[in-house]
Amino acid sequence: MSEEIFSYHRLLSFTRAVFEYIGCSDEDAMSASKALLSADLRGIDSHGIARLNGYIRLWEAKRANPKPAIKIVHETPSTAVVDGDGGLGLVVAPYAMDVAIKKAAAVGTGWVSVCNSNHFGIAAYHAMKANYHDMIGIAMTNASPLVAPTFSVERLLGTNPICVAIPAGDEPAFVADLATTTAANGKLEILQRKNQQAPLGWIQDKYGAESTNPHELKSGGALLPLGGDREHGSHKGYALGAIVDIFSAVLSGANYGPWVPPFPAFMSMPENMPGKGIGHFFGAMRIDAFRPAEDFKLHMDQWIQRFRSAQPVEGHEQVLIPGDPEREMESERLERGIPLLHSVVEDLRFLSEKFGIEL
Amino acid sequence: MSEEIFSYHRLLSFTRAVFEYIGCSDEDAMSASKALLSADLRGIDSHGIARLNGYIRLWEAKRANPKPAIKIVHETPSTAVVDGDGGLGLVVAPYAMDVAIKKAAAVGTGWVSVCNSNHFGIAAYHAMKANYHDMIGIAMTNASPLVAPTFSVERLLGTNPICVAIPAGDEPAFVADLATTTAANGKLEILQRKNQQAPLGWIQDKYGAESTNPHELKSGGALLPLGGDREHGSHKGYALGAIVDIFSAVLSGANYGPWVPPFPAFMSMPENMPGKGIGHFFGAMRIDAFRPAEDFKLHMDQWIQRFRSAQPVEGHEQVLIPGDPEREMESERLERGIPLLHSVVEDLRFLSEKFGIEL
Repeated sequence: MSEEIFSYHRLLSFTRAVFEYIGCSDEDAMSASKALLSADLRGIDSHGIARLNGYIRLWEAKRANPKPAIKIVHETPSTAVVDGDGGLGLVVAPYAMDVAIKKAAAVGTGWVSVCNSNHFGIAAYHAMKANYHDMIGIAMTNASPLVAPTFSVERLLGTNPICVAIPAGDEPAFVADLATTTAANGKLEILQRKNQQAPLGWIQDKYGAESTNPHELKSGGALLPLGGDREHGSHKGYALGAIVDIFSAVLSGANYGPWVPPFPAFMSMPENMPGKGIGHFFGAMRIDAFRPAEDFKLHMDQWIQRFRSAQPVEGHEQVLIPGDPEREMESERLERGIPLLHSVVEDLRFLSEKFGIEL
Repeated sequence: MSEEIFSYHRLLSFTRAVFEYIGCSDEDAMSASKALLSADLRGIDSHGIARLNGYIRLWEAKRANPKPAIKIVHETPSTAVVDGDGGLGLVVAPYAMDVAIKKAAAVGTGWVSVCNSNHFGIAAYHAMKANYHDMIGIAMTNASPLVAPTFSVERLLGTNPICVAIPAGDEPAFVADLATTTAANGKLEILQRKNQQAPLGWIQDKYGAESTNPHELKSGGALLPLGGDREHGSHKGYALGAIVDIFSAVLSGANYGPWVPPFPAFMSMPENMPGKGIGHFFGAMRIDAFRPAEDFKLHMDQWIQRFRSAQPVEGHEQVLIPGDPEREMESERLERGIPLLHSVVEDLRFLSEKFGIEL
């Protein structure tokens, strides 16, 4: 698995040109590229530029609209439903998060449920936008069904991530971005490429029995909800994934459960879809809608410092704060570049030649 | 472990009289008793009347104010911070949830962070109140530190539960009420009483090593966050517990992390406490702030029916919807009565004699 290193700015201008090629406006192409590459910067390689070709195939299959007329279809002072008009989630999500932020500025909090969208990259990118406004940011999305609820043989939920980003003072923000499964699908993909076994508790086979075979999903198996099995709380992971699904799709009129459209463009769409596209949910809470931002940040710093200085278990250096590893990765990759697997580079070269865009 | 069966109404009038005895108003005594006994009805025996004596001991230690002047100390159209004035959480929480519901009625959603409170029973009781108003209800609370974050030897978080209650149409509501640990402390207490081993993944010893000894918490051990270990996502359970702590206490000015006051009145208070009492967080979202309630309920019913009819793993009858077991328990116990352990009945008899209140 040889790697090649690219600078962030080189990948950004390539991605931007690709999105412009398929018809995105300059502004949308830039916005989508930043959202997509934030995954590579933060080390969530499965959700970044490795998926660019996948997004393009969705466009080729006419399942992603490069010029969406995104609009608010219903609203109150603190809420809105946004219809993404089949646009790239990478474009629809920033629009919707901005609506949440504006509502929070006006009445304290803003909550936006989104239908008719598509995959939006990593949740953290969208949630963290609120932090620049001294707000707590929340982002979640449903996704193609890969996860079996507790006691289910069938796959009915996506890995349905939740991100909560909380600003601090001198300390960096607290950013928890978590798939509601034991392990994100990206981790399974790494094991598949390396042909290594998965730990028990990550996946089940087509009969619902525990399995360590990372290829199980290709033959009817499923990812397991956070907790792994009932005895270890998988019903809680299932409930969390379900909450994400309902907030993102049942509130907005998107597709939910087993009807969420698959990301791979070659897979056929589910029958009898109850809604439009994929759903997301965003929240923004102004800190000073609760207490003065300075007070809050002082206590957030104290919270973070206390947890970070807790006595670690032998063999571990330190207790981490959610977001620590991704932030460190981001500064490293901004400086030293982003390593891409050979197979990903080949995909990009293919796009480069096809569209005549220099990589 | 012999049991004795009591009718709900017998326990309700006893509990109400006890709360009145310590100085609660008639209204507060009723409100607190309903909140407390909802745990017994729903089968969360660890959080119900078994704790009545514990609440009374808090009052005796002057750590629970029977006549609190609960008030809103800060607010915007969609938010408020409530100071519980050291009252019983069983009284403060219903007040705060009502504030959230009123704000949601006015501007679409309402979000209330609470300081200077005390233990509030089960989160589900408070969240479900919103459902009567065609709103989604959310309730969470921090609690005494029993949980070690991933890689930590120290206990820095409570079991910090989250409840999300979502109304449906013909189907009963979706009610997910989950401690952000692998197993709730109540489950550990059951193993302690029976002297049975705990599964791996529930607890660690005082060095941070995995343990199956349910008594480990008495000698410096800790409960583990949902996920159990890093490989199975314990950093996600830790992050969820942390979010509950921050929303409940850093936003409101309550105590957080290791400074949350312990429930047992005989335990000394932490030093250098950074806030007031225990913190909670409540949310209410009006369904029709997103889409017509009838549409939402139709799709919620379809969601629930699809999940409930999923093909189950062999050996299991059915895929459950969050809230199913507790709702079934409630109707059974309303009809047949609530079984109480002998040790709990003894506690109640002790209170009965001490205060001269007929059990």
